[in-house]
Amino acid sequence: MPSISQRGIDMPASPIRKLVPLADQAKANGTKVYHLNIGQPDVATPQVALDAIRTMDRSVLEYSPSEGIRSFREKLALYYETFKIHVSADDIIITTGGSEAVFFSFMAALDPGDEIIVPEPAYANYMAFAISAGAVIKTVSSTIEEGFALPSVEKFEALITPRTKAILICNPNNPTGYLYTQKEMNQIRDLVLKYDLFLFSDEVYREFCYTGAPYISAFHLEGIENNVVLIDSVSKRYSECGIRIGALVTKNEQIKTSVMKWCQARLSAPLLGQIVAEASLDTSAEYMLEVYNEYVERRKFLIDGLNRIPGCYSPIPMGAFYTVAKLPVDNADTFCAWCLSDFSYEGQTVFMAPASGFYTTPGLGINEVRIAYVLKKEELAKALVVLAKALEAYPGRQL
Amino acid sequence: MPSISQRGIDMPASPIRKLVPLADQAKANGTKVYHLNIGQPDVATPQVALDAIRTMDRSVLEYSPSEGIRSFREKLALYYETFKIHVSADDIIITTGGSEAVFFSFMAALDPGDEIIVPEPAYANYMAFAISAGAVIKTVSSTIEEGFALPSVEKFEALITPRTKAILICNPNNPTGYLYTQKEMNQIRDLVLKYDLFLFSDEVYREFCYTGAPYISAFHLEGIENNVVLIDSVSKRYSECGIRIGALVTKNEQIKTSVMKWCQARLSAPLLGQIVAEASLDTSAEYMLEVYNEYVERRKFLIDGLNRIPGCYSPIPMGAFYTVAKLPVDNADTFCAWCLSDFSYEGQTVFMAPASGFYTTPGLGINEVRIAYVLKKEELAKALVVLAKALEAYPGRQL
Repeated sequence: MPSISQRGIDMPASPIRKLVPLADQAKANGTKVYHLNIGQPDVATPQVALDAIRTMDRSVLEYSPSEGIRSFREKLALYYETFKIHVSADDIIITTGGSEAVFFSFMAALDPGDEIIVPEPAYANYMAFAISAGAVIKTVSSTIEEGFALPSVEKFEALITPRTKAILICNPNNPTGYLYTQKEMNQIRDLVLKYDLFLFSDEVYREFCYTGAPYISAFHLEGIENNVVLIDSVSKRYSECGIRIGALVTKNEQIKTSVMKWCQARLSAPLLGQIVAEASLDTSAEYMLEVYNEYVERRKFLIDGLNRIPGCYSPIPMGAFYTVAKLPVDNADTFCAWCLSDFSYEGQTVFMAPASGFYTTPGLGINEVRIAYVLKKEELAKALVVLAKALEAYPGRQL
Repeated sequence: MPSISQRGIDMPASPIRKLVPLADQAKANGTKVYHLNIGQPDVATPQVALDAIRTMDRSVLEYSPSEGIRSFREKLALYYETFKIHVSADDIIITTGGSEAVFFSFMAALDPGDEIIVPEPAYANYMAFAISAGAVIKTVSSTIEEGFALPSVEKFEALITPRTKAILICNPNNPTGYLYTQKEMNQIRDLVLKYDLFLFSDEVYREFCYTGAPYISAFHLEGIENNVVLIDSVSKRYSECGIRIGALVTKNEQIKTSVMKWCQARLSAPLLGQIVAEASLDTSAEYMLEVYNEYVERRKFLIDGLNRIPGCYSPIPMGAFYTVAKLPVDNADTFCAWCLSDFSYEGQTVFMAPASGFYTTPGLGINEVRIAYVLKKEELAKALVVLAKALEAYPGRQL
């Protein structure tokens, strides 16, 4: 039997994924499991989006254009305009989820061996796409003590080598919920200019900013228009993660040309998803506000609740629908597994994501978890009770 | 401005893609363009598939499992059983089109620099996925004179190096329509065993075999069960290319484990496409037979017509819905472009794919085109008249 590729062997299995069989087993045993582990909102997809697909008038489900359906791209450009992101339909390439936008950004901008600097903790799948593209992720660490603020210029500069080609940020941030300030975004812009880098900016959570502080898009930064590749997705804002529709937005003509080659190779993004996503852009302001208010309430409720549990600490996330919290445990990987395999309270337990999966520096985040507030308040309330009881009972408790 | 990746620059633009602007211009000028250039059937998607999406009862379009929806995979296993391909749902991973199945096969099996041997002419996008994965495609040439039969063992063996890791075939073949015989498949099996290779077998056209000769799946070959990675797609058989649903089927546990890592990184295949594809498996035998008979007729009509044009020659394709034909021209790239930019007959012209894009050996296929018979007979009839007139008028005619 021939040997398989080393890169697949080398790729670390996600700590969340390793826990899935334990969660399945807990459910099989009749335990109610609160899923705080993934960014799958329980919010209903907008009716206008569901209707678009139900009333679709097509008899052949044919290929769509490799760059995406024109009318959808034009509507997206208008949508971006409402955030003062000035791009045209020609700057927008529709992708199969934000995931493909990340991968194609890397493929187009980076040669094998090129390096990307990413603040950690970071979305774990960036690493997989970097490995796919043969690129190398170098992380600058942000800390819970500093509320996950952007690390200093010096920390970035310490990582810069002749192979450094890009900085990647996620804003508002998954997993921390941090929202970069104007000053921090200017720091990134200055680094991009000084070292002639690409800036990959994953902004899929822009609808979810809660503190009144402004959302600063990479496209708002002056002087780096040709360095910016914006990564976007409709998944989170319309609760339609399953349709796999995202976008890669750039004004860099060379990047566009290269990305289009990869787009053409995979023929097209999903047709049905594009129909849903285009219709989603007509979602009412009422729906958007209702969802927003729901997350505002959940966030307050969750963070207050977490910080009332002895030994727990969560900064107040400013955006997205996650927080990274510190728990009074020896090891969050072990604790999260223990919750699923050895613990239940009144027939319930919690599934959280160990934060270790979001750090590449060994040892960081060892007592941290990511919690997604994608459940209703009543469910979050029960989950918080279960978490408090679990922390009381856990043998590796460390107050 | 930072420089972009060399691999995107190096990737050859497809000769078909280069002609698209010319076709658009011809249409803008009011010329009717017969699209013989792409594998986009005009056949209606089965009603049962369209109904599934129209009557879908879901309020959240959420992520589906990374490996694909279980019930769909179980139905697919039953479908394969009807072709005597004995696999279980656990051997099937749903992908975003056959395209992703090709890419993930390469990523899982091959390290950068590893080599794949592919008979040419071959589906051009294999090259893009190989470049993406850092793998190298080496081609063995088949010829129109031999009806695109599998090249000899010696020709394969001449290409084998310590880096050779796989053979890739497409059966029935795109672009040639060739169907490999039992003897040829045994030859491939023997090579796979002798050199301990993977066999990537793209069998998306299995429904379309016209001569009574048997379709031999890679899974029918004894002794290489753990070497086979089957690449599949529902696109062609149910005329639903736009939904982007394919499958990677293998019994090799190491490949499965590695592929699942890439699947998890991109979260899931399209949910709506999977709903359509699962329902498509209930398509009536009447629909399948009607479509089959339609292609049988078109094929006969097209090939007879082509071979009646002076200086044209097409072998009789045994499967799929393409043929590669030789034309009496100096250069098919130039001729195909000329048809779109400089020629029309009674306000009509033809768009064909220059075969040069399917060969990697320079100079091969220089006077060949791929023609897809994805249009109704009446349209094919008109296209054939236009082609004959174009060949008469073309300045680079070479009889």
